Amino acid sequence: MSGTDERLKKDELLELLLHADEKTLKEQIEYIHPADILELLHDEDIDPKALMARLPDSLIADIIDEEDEEDKYGILKLFSEDKQEEILEEMSSDELADMVGSIEDRSELAKVIGKLSEEDRSEVRQLLSYPPDTAGGIMATEFINIYDNKTVYKTLLYLQEIAEEVETAYCLYVVDRQNHLRGSLNLTDLVTSSFDTAVLDIMNPHVITAHVEDDQEEISRQFEKYGLVELPVVNDADQLVGVITVDDVMEIATEEATEDIHYMGGISGEEEVDGPLSDSLKSRLPWLVVNLLTAFLASWVVSLFEATISKVVALSAIMSIITGMGGNAGTQSMTIIVRGIALNELNRDNALRIFLKEFTVGIVTGAAIGGIVAAVEVVIQGNPYLGLVTGLAMVLNMMVATATGYLVPVLLKKMRIDPALASAVFVTTATDVLGFFFFLGLATLFLPKLL
Amino acid sequence: MSGTDERLKKDELLELLLHADEKTLKEQIEYIHPADILELLHDEDIDPKALMARLPDSLIADIIDEEDEEDKYGILKLFSEDKQEEILEEMSSDELADMVGSIEDRSELAKVIGKLSEEDRSEVRQLLSYPPDTAGGIMATEFINIYDNKTVYKTLLYLQEIAEEVETAYCLYVVDRQNHLRGSLNLTDLVTSSFDTAVLDIMNPHVITAHVEDDQEEISRQFEKYGLVELPVVNDADQLVGVITVDDVMEIATEEATEDIHYMGGISGEEEVDGPLSDSLKSRLPWLVVNLLTAFLASWVVSLFEATISKVVALSAIMSIITGMGGNAGTQSMTIIVRGIALNELNRDNALRIFLKEFTVGIVTGAAIGGIVAAVEVVIQGNPYLGLVTGLAMVLNMMVATATGYLVPVLLKKMRIDPALASAVFVTTATDVLGFFFFLGLATLFLPKLL
Repeated sequence: MSGTDERLKKDELLELLLHADEKTLKEQIEYIHPADILELLHDEDIDPKALMARLPDSLIADIIDEEDEEDKYGILKLFSEDKQEEILEEMSSDELADMVGSIEDRSELAKVIGKLSEEDRSEVRQLLSYPPDTAGGIMATEFINIYDNKTVYKTLLYLQEIAEEVETAYCLYVVDRQNHLRGSLNLTDLVTSSFDTAVLDIMNPHVITAHVEDDQEEISRQFEKYGLVELPVVNDADQLVGVITVDDVMEIATEEATEDIHYMGGISGEEEVDGPLSDSLKSRLPWLVVNLLTAFLASWVVSLFEATISKVVALSAIMSIITGMGGNAGTQSMTIIVRGIALNELNRDNALRIFLKEFTVGIVTGAAIGGIVAAVEVVIQGNPYLGLVTGLAMVLNMMVATATGYLVPVLLKKMRIDPALASAVFVTTATDVLGFFFFLGLATLFLPKLL
Repeated sequence: MSGTDERLKKDELLELLLHADEKTLKEQIEYIHPADILELLHDEDIDPKALMARLPDSLIADIIDEEDEEDKYGILKLFSEDKQEEILEEMSSDELADMVGSIEDRSELAKVIGKLSEEDRSEVRQLLSYPPDTAGGIMATEFINIYDNKTVYKTLLYLQEIAEEVETAYCLYVVDRQNHLRGSLNLTDLVTSSFDTAVLDIMNPHVITAHVEDDQEEISRQFEKYGLVELPVVNDADQLVGVITVDDVMEIATEEATEDIHYMGGISGEEEVDGPLSDSLKSRLPWLVVNLLTAFLASWVVSLFEATISKVVALSAIMSIITGMGGNAGTQSMTIIVRGIALNELNRDNALRIFLKEFTVGIVTGAAIGGIVAAVEVVIQGNPYLGLVTGLAMVLNMMVATATGYLVPVLLKKMRIDPALASAVFVTTATDVLGFFFFLGLATLFLPKLL
């Protein structure tokens, strides 16, 4: 990646920020990406105050914007009260709302809000009134709107006039006097149309929009489906209230994937790989306790058959193969189904077909794995009936595995419980409890032949 | 989401495409998103030929672009040879390369390539020479470049002139006569600068670029880190050869997350939730067989202690609690670490700290879970020594679990093996084999006290 090669390498960047003369710094500063400075800030050996002492307010605002929500305010607090006010002025409404929303201490919160301009304060209040995982919670209120009576030339003159206030945009929004969204005009169409073209003739009147209350996961899907870079957000009255840009959505998609991966691995909270021990314990212990309960259940099933086991001790060595393989097969089915649900790939049309496929996978893999296990046990133990019991239990358990691997996430989804979070515990409970039951039950049935 | 409400709902869209008069269709067609038509195409009850009979070539090209790679050619083949040629003319080079690259039949391939224009053919050949998961493999060769001696006004006139060829763009690229990339000019800056501004004064000379051979996962990370919408791609000679846009990258991020989730669930191939049975078997059976080998290993460990079990049959019911909980704890650690590696969050600075945290999690959760299990077994079995053996084995196995949960993915990464793919089997083998060994070994040691 030449992003890091061509621009300033870490050491050079550090040298520039700490020791360059004013003139050099001023020339170079506009080409430094805030994400690169943020990386340096995360280096524990570097003094953050010295690093940012000579940065312009707007760049500091951008760095705060790049930082994770819970650490944003920590950067702002490095500066004097007056400087803080200047930095806050440079932040856009959604950036402010993200930071303000993460401050838990009430007196700190009041202090920051006190430093905002009247306009920012009301916008931040408005944004914070939306749940953080909805369109309203992630949108910015900065966008460019134009009235529908303009030509390309007049639009360009208008944009040159308001240049100071404009942040990077991909679309202009055409509204009427009541701020109803009438269409969108992407910049490519603006710059390729002759100066006398009417905006009305080149705008797209069928804009894809989100409602302020739409869920962020659904929004992320729309971005992907339609290849969007920006999505306007409207309220109940169809008035334009904000825009969501693709960079925010990419972060959301990654966060959602991480959440799903963590959930499926039995991690329930918001745990970070380099986070505190207490977070790890909070996110893991509850699931371990739940799993322990199901382990006791499976253990109880085994204890019902202690009489059988005491007569054929070899059963105790074989039984974990049945439950283990059932767990593996169940996890495979569950993984495919949970991810399919997350990507919206399961629907009424294909549900039955997919269930039957999973069930068939259970039969086929059960027969294959069961066949191998049966053959091996016959050879080792020298008893064909033990092979039969093992193979049969394996086929039955693999069928249970793939069937529950399908049914559990689908039912959880219907009950509005996140399938990624809770599927594994039910599936493995089924394969453990029933696996032991099938194997030890069949062994008890065939006991005279196994002795 | 009002995307679907405001635009045409499924039934209305179907009605429009199949039965609307020419005039209505022509008026509405430019507002239909190809992704919506593609959804209809996937409905088995709808005749694809009838659906697309009256669509303009450019829209058909866009629909093909939206389709999954392996099914793109299937859509093209619905049309007559002449029509196919017209549709191919509307496709951009990267779209063509994606489709052509997916055709496996050599004679079909030759037929399609024969229909391409000379220029397209050479561009497609060039693109197909790059591995599909590199910058070269995903970039488009269509972009707008301008020379560095222009003003804003002249640039606008130039863009109006070439309007016909221009696709949606977010940036213009400033090059010298040898096509070396000199800077980028985003459209926002173009439309907000006065007409007499020199392009050189508003372009960004420090462009973040990718090299044609850069890996797509790294590229996806750069998009997210820097909030990019477009990334220019250069060759060894620093010449601009293509651009990657954010919509392609979003798809990649989702695909990579799906791949990781599947890998961690024990699914090794490219399996789709609604794909054929044979794909499912191919992607799952190999891992089941590998897991079976490790299950035999664990089973063999148990069989070493059959003498002990035959004396205290209760052990057979308890032992799966030790291995099961170890498996759960190991999976938790492994999940956090594998995802952390995927997101580039593990580095030399934090490696030791994270390892020690995982190990501590093992000790603390082991003590907690071990304590509960020990107490329960003391109550049920009425033997304090059995409680001691159970609790001790649990603590030891949880420490093994979290330690291997960290070490296995980290070592696999060092060996350039995808940690998501292979970690689970090693971690659960360790917790199964050692879990049985700790528990039954300790039981054998304390045997006189357990009788």
